[in-house]
Amino acid sequence: MSVTLLPITEVARNCGIPEQYLIPYGREVAKVDLRVIQSEAKQGKLVLVSAITPTPLGEGKTVTTIGLSQGLNFIGQKAIACIRQPSLGPVFGVKGGAAGGGKAQVLPMEKLNLHLTGDIHAITAAHDLASAALDARLYHEEHLGENFTAQTKLPRLNIDKNRIVWKRVIDHNDRALRRIKVGVGGGANGVEREDGFEISAASELMAILALATDLQDMRLRIGRIILAYDTQGKPITAEQLEVAGAMTVLLKDAINPNLMQTAEQTPVLIHAGPFANIAHGNSSVLADKVGLQLADYVVTEAGFGSDMGMEKFFNIKFRQTGVAPSCVVLVATVRSLKSNSGRFNIKPGQPLPNEVTQCNVSLLAEGSANLGWHIRNAKSYGLPVIVAINRFPYDHEEELEYVRQYALEQGASACEISEAFTQGGAGTQALARHVVAACAKNNTVTLPYADSMPLEEKIQTMAKKYGARQANLSERAQQNMAEIRQLGLDHLPLCMVKTPLSISADPNLKNVPTDFDIDIARLQVSAGAGFIRVYAGNVMTMPGLGTLPAYRQIDIDAEGNIVGLH
Amino acid sequence: MSVTLLPITEVARNCGIPEQYLIPYGREVAKVDLRVIQSEAKQGKLVLVSAITPTPLGEGKTVTTIGLSQGLNFIGQKAIACIRQPSLGPVFGVKGGAAGGGKAQVLPMEKLNLHLTGDIHAITAAHDLASAALDARLYHEEHLGENFTAQTKLPRLNIDKNRIVWKRVIDHNDRALRRIKVGVGGGANGVEREDGFEISAASELMAILALATDLQDMRLRIGRIILAYDTQGKPITAEQLEVAGAMTVLLKDAINPNLMQTAEQTPVLIHAGPFANIAHGNSSVLADKVGLQLADYVVTEAGFGSDMGMEKFFNIKFRQTGVAPSCVVLVATVRSLKSNSGRFNIKPGQPLPNEVTQCNVSLLAEGSANLGWHIRNAKSYGLPVIVAINRFPYDHEEELEYVRQYALEQGASACEISEAFTQGGAGTQALARHVVAACAKNNTVTLPYADSMPLEEKIQTMAKKYGARQANLSERAQQNMAEIRQLGLDHLPLCMVKTPLSISADPNLKNVPTDFDIDIARLQVSAGAGFIRVYAGNVMTMPGLGTLPAYRQIDIDAEGNIVGLH
Repeated sequence: MSVTLLPITEVARNCGIPEQYLIPYGREVAKVDLRVIQSEAKQGKLVLVSAITPTPLGEGKTVTTIGLSQGLNFIGQKAIACIRQPSLGPVFGVKGGAAGGGKAQVLPMEKLNLHLTGDIHAITAAHDLASAALDARLYHEEHLGENFTAQTKLPRLNIDKNRIVWKRVIDHNDRALRRIKVGVGGGANGVEREDGFEISAASELMAILALATDLQDMRLRIGRIILAYDTQGKPITAEQLEVAGAMTVLLKDAINPNLMQTAEQTPVLIHAGPFANIAHGNSSVLADKVGLQLADYVVTEAGFGSDMGMEKFFNIKFRQTGVAPSCVVLVATVRSLKSNSGRFNIKPGQPLPNEVTQCNVSLLAEGSANLGWHIRNAKSYGLPVIVAINRFPYDHEEELEYVRQYALEQGASACEISEAFTQGGAGTQALARHVVAACAKNNTVTLPYADSMPLEEKIQTMAKKYGARQANLSERAQQNMAEIRQLGLDHLPLCMVKTPLSISADPNLKNVPTDFDIDIARLQVSAGAGFIRVYAGNVMTMPGLGTLPAYRQIDIDAEGNIVGLH
Repeated sequence: MSVTLLPITEVARNCGIPEQYLIPYGREVAKVDLRVIQSEAKQGKLVLVSAITPTPLGEGKTVTTIGLSQGLNFIGQKAIACIRQPSLGPVFGVKGGAAGGGKAQVLPMEKLNLHLTGDIHAITAAHDLASAALDARLYHEEHLGENFTAQTKLPRLNIDKNRIVWKRVIDHNDRALRRIKVGVGGGANGVEREDGFEISAASELMAILALATDLQDMRLRIGRIILAYDTQGKPITAEQLEVAGAMTVLLKDAINPNLMQTAEQTPVLIHAGPFANIAHGNSSVLADKVGLQLADYVVTEAGFGSDMGMEKFFNIKFRQTGVAPSCVVLVATVRSLKSNSGRFNIKPGQPLPNEVTQCNVSLLAEGSANLGWHIRNAKSYGLPVIVAINRFPYDHEEELEYVRQYALEQGASACEISEAFTQGGAGTQALARHVVAACAKNNTVTLPYADSMPLEEKIQTMAKKYGARQANLSERAQQNMAEIRQLGLDHLPLCMVKTPLSISADPNLKNVPTDFDIDIARLQVSAGAGFIRVYAGNVMTMPGLGTLPAYRQIDIDAEGNIVGLH
């Protein structure tokens, strides 16, 4: 990339961050001190970027988010993009990095994709400290038996070793850690029990980082986390284990959003990294707030399709903050719409099928119903929807025109081709102008369920929103529901855990599935994050490495530069 | 602490680091770009700080290292201290931080003790990437069977699942992870096998970070790491698994040492963090090199007693770099010498026994033989030895005078009381003057064994150096020895893994043990770090949390400041 980067101090100056609130981490990245948020702040407009049902390759939502923020700057507006920090799992697994691409990317991308300022490492450390603390307490109470309290002056927690809900986390795709046995051999090695690792993006702490409004709020949320249940079935929180303070201390720097720049030297905030299939999948409340303080437009990304991250934006993030977007930008690709026809399969690491590259409007038309569904879904939340067609080199004019017409017919306020990848901000000017126009109107967010709606009804409401006949709750899910009611936490919103590759919970059902049910395996309350995870179908919270993982290509060259990282 | 900190940029300017080589991480910490090391560099003198056999509380070696560097600056010399980065395990466990203390500490200590610039997290991430890669390959080869090569175009590695020597690591005291079973349930969860976690300080990557001379050297060393053996008994390296490049990329920033300041605004380099009981326990070669480029005196710390970190400095670090110290400073305390009498026990978290605080020269005299042993041991490497008595408030003049006389009788070039804790650099002036005098002489390092000495003889030589009758090698150790010979790696030096609480391998044998053997359980070659780990006795490579762990006190206050971290 022959792009000149500005010193990060200059990027900060250009977007009005006072020097005392900028904490540089090297020359290309800085953290922004939360104190930059003033109560008398001017408030920009929030633009939420979502998508249709993607293929496993992704449809360029980050490219469009970055490109649109560049486009807004290009037409003379002050705009900042907000994205999540990439997880090392996919970086070394199959997908590669998550910096956008072409002329619409965050630079330097190796800083973004590796470590950044250590926020995910801090999440992992804080999470696993609680695990170590929990297993140690389990061991000491068992080992000292009746003498435990006499010797330690601590109350017994009586942890039920079969009801520890706090798994460990690691930021890798490590299938062998999905199900493990810890404390093998017993004795001083602790109490033997079954456990497992999830990827760090799935940690409740990651959700807390993304939802907290300040450090004290984060401290309180961490204290509320339910780690396990005792032998009487009562919850044991991080506060009770006396580990919530230390966990917060580990996240004290992570709470400040990270500032970087696009290929066009415009500002980007990067913060938190929840995956939208297993967590709430949105960039952080605090990054949005910092952005809204500094810019006229904040373009914020929500993971996967509108059934996933966008839905969670409204039902989780918006409920907690009250900050509404002014419009929704829905990213579509010809490739994904064709794939939604269900007539072929796209697999990562394999050549694209001919159907993708050859002009085929009738195939496209078959899959386009998926776009119609996502437009209606987004509009059902009360906001104008603009469709951005992320153009690929193999797209044909006829196909693009078909999508444009179809989107408008289905109720989109506007539909524009985005050429962010090849042209950067110049390639999203028209899109940016539509966004400015849409943001000028006043709209009111409509939510699909009230906090007070009974828990099962919330689940059925969401199932119906996906087009399912109904949700079938397993016995375990029923029991979890009863427990959550007993804890008085059934007022919390849902965080649906499901595949992103279908509007339904079955990745094989493409386009707009009908005549299906959704099976709910279990529920888990995240009392700190403030939502109830509803596990629909068999969703992996720990990915695995494939046969030809991306790490094989990554190395340093003779000059010490990083190669093979995409 | 009412101490004024300089901006780290100013600390860097004061010690002559050109601006282009300084990479700030916030206002109080910076990384120093390795390119600051010039071949035509002026060379300062290296001062190695070691100790007598410590109590479990530690005897203030870091306080003395920091304080001596302050003292050297105090008397008008340019001096830099080099220490290791603290591990989160002890910080949240029992010991607290490792920033020194009183007027001889690194500031801000919460930056040092938590995350710093993420180097240990990078080690953990790179280490566990190799583990994930190894288990994934094991799974794919087993799952695809004979089709593996046809489908992937990769050669079969035929990993022997019972001979995977690369355990996972985490930077916590987590006893439940010592012995685990991974891949439970089989199928897509991987291959079921027994595994375990060690603390990150024990990772071979940590040793490599501490021993590498530049990025390319690190890349080559990582490639040489033996992760497992195949079903034919041949080693499988990180290079063969094609993961060495990605591991190096994760450590690309970690290779630059970290700059901070003391309570007297003098420079300190912090880099790598190997524990001296389970690893080679020395601050990094590169930090020393950077220091020697910038200062007249570099005070570098080696972990635990002279039988541990100092021995490893000479046999491992010096062998690889050829950079010799000009003198050894041996830290002693009245407390530890009394404890070496064996007449009482000091336990962390419990009040000090009366024997420590009451004046008792005869008790002190009983334990002082330990000091004599360490003086002779240090001198046996060919260098002048200066004893620094780290004074505690409850020490008595008579006792201090006894130690001073005894040290000189036993061959120390000088013995001075260090009041670094209470007085900072002013309290180590006399010590600093002795160090300057000792460094003016030319000395030659004498090593206890040549590279070419047969492996078993090296082990017997070290056992005899500890005063043992002999080393008894288990059957497994014998077998490991044969394997290492077969690999042609028996020329490597030893990295003894043993308790630091005794010169022997038994923590209960205080003072100068006699009439004992050392049992060698097993050997493991670290082909990347370039040494052979020799496990003497039952040494834990994963600590556990006690009944009253330090994390309970750690929290944020109403203003968001960290409290309870010591």
